[in-house]
Amino acid sequence: MRRIITIGREFGSGGREFGCRLAENLGVAYYDQEIITAIVKKTELSERYVQQMLEKKPIASFPIHIGRTLHTLPSPMLEQSRLLYQQQCQVIREMAEKSDCVIVGRCADYILREYHPFRIFMYANMESKIERCRQKEQTQKILTDKELRKSILEVDRQRSRYYGFYTDQTWGDRTNYDLCVNTTNTSIKEIAIALTKLFGK
Amino acid sequence: MRRIITIGREFGSGGREFGCRLAENLGVAYYDQEIITAIVKKTELSERYVQQMLEKKPIASFPIHIGRTLHTLPSPMLEQSRLLYQQQCQVIREMAEKSDCVIVGRCADYILREYHPFRIFMYANMESKIERCRQKEQTQKILTDKELRKSILEVDRQRSRYYGFYTDQTWGDRTNYDLCVNTTNTSIKEIAIALTKLFGK
Repeated sequence: MRRIITIGREFGSGGREFGCRLAENLGVAYYDQEIITAIVKKTELSERYVQQMLEKKPIASFPIHIGRTLHTLPSPMLEQSRLLYQQQCQVIREMAEKSDCVIVGRCADYILREYHPFRIFMYANMESKIERCRQKEQTQKILTDKELRKSILEVDRQRSRYYGFYTDQTWGDRTNYDLCVNTTNTSIKEIAIALTKLFGK
Repeated sequence: MRRIITIGREFGSGGREFGCRLAENLGVAYYDQEIITAIVKKTELSERYVQQMLEKKPIASFPIHIGRTLHTLPSPMLEQSRLLYQQQCQVIREMAEKSDCVIVGRCADYILREYHPFRIFMYANMESKIERCRQKEQTQKILTDKELRKSILEVDRQRSRYYGFYTDQTWGDRTNYDLCVNTTNTSIKEIAIALTKLFGK
């Protein structure tokens, strides 16, 4: 079976932990922060800035009237976002060329479509995502359920917009994935062990 | 892992073959036509009629004016459809009580929700579904791609309406399933072997 595996995921669904465990079980590379680090090296921009730009849908340029003519102002933010996306594409393709791997997020399912990756999407119900966030992040313990819910929805909205902007596909739409996994009330460790078997290990 | 497995599926996605193979691999019961047969026995209606009634969303009763008052006419078709659905619920619950099993379609994921079944949904792209239909049914070889496509969409529309009517959920919406499997360009036999491993066999 193919061994380039991409993982799209809702925030709090355990996608990152799953990707990490799956890569470990399969003995293949796991790429996540390494992608940012590689782009930082290429661009000499700060890590935080690159991270932010690669998570938000760019603000589009806006048309203005000068006299009777409609002009489109070039937006430096849009240009930079596009350049960073191109860098990201290049880095991800280089990684996929190098060896079998698991890549979480970053539109990798779309960027690597010519490599026919095995595309997984992970999701869960809100209660389960809130619970998982609380277990992970000490800082999130001070947030109320309502605040945490709002924050989870906001991250997913950003992911959805970013993915939609660059891929022209709908984020989380099952037709774009080979397997969609509901992680509600289940252990990520167990899901990783079970799905590792799909890849013959 | 739980061994009551329900399978929702798009027409032509190979869901029935998959369910049959999975049950065989796991050594558990497979229920499909048996459900119809059991209802036929209970109701003494014809098999064909039961099958038809259990696949189409019932026609709702319609309000009429008598003088100035609005009355709702009882619809015998609606009543019969509801009664048959109740029979179906009972038969499916009896089957689930009896032993571990795989049940394809028939709103079983919803009917058995208190048993916490493992809920699978199978889907594929249209090209792949057309191809699979052609391989299965000799009769479908005389249809053009356009006719076959129309017929596939119509069956799925009926399934969707029926499911929506009785469950108040959206058919094929990933949040109602534990696993959604894209069968495009893959062998059902291989998917069944791979997913059997999820259940520890």
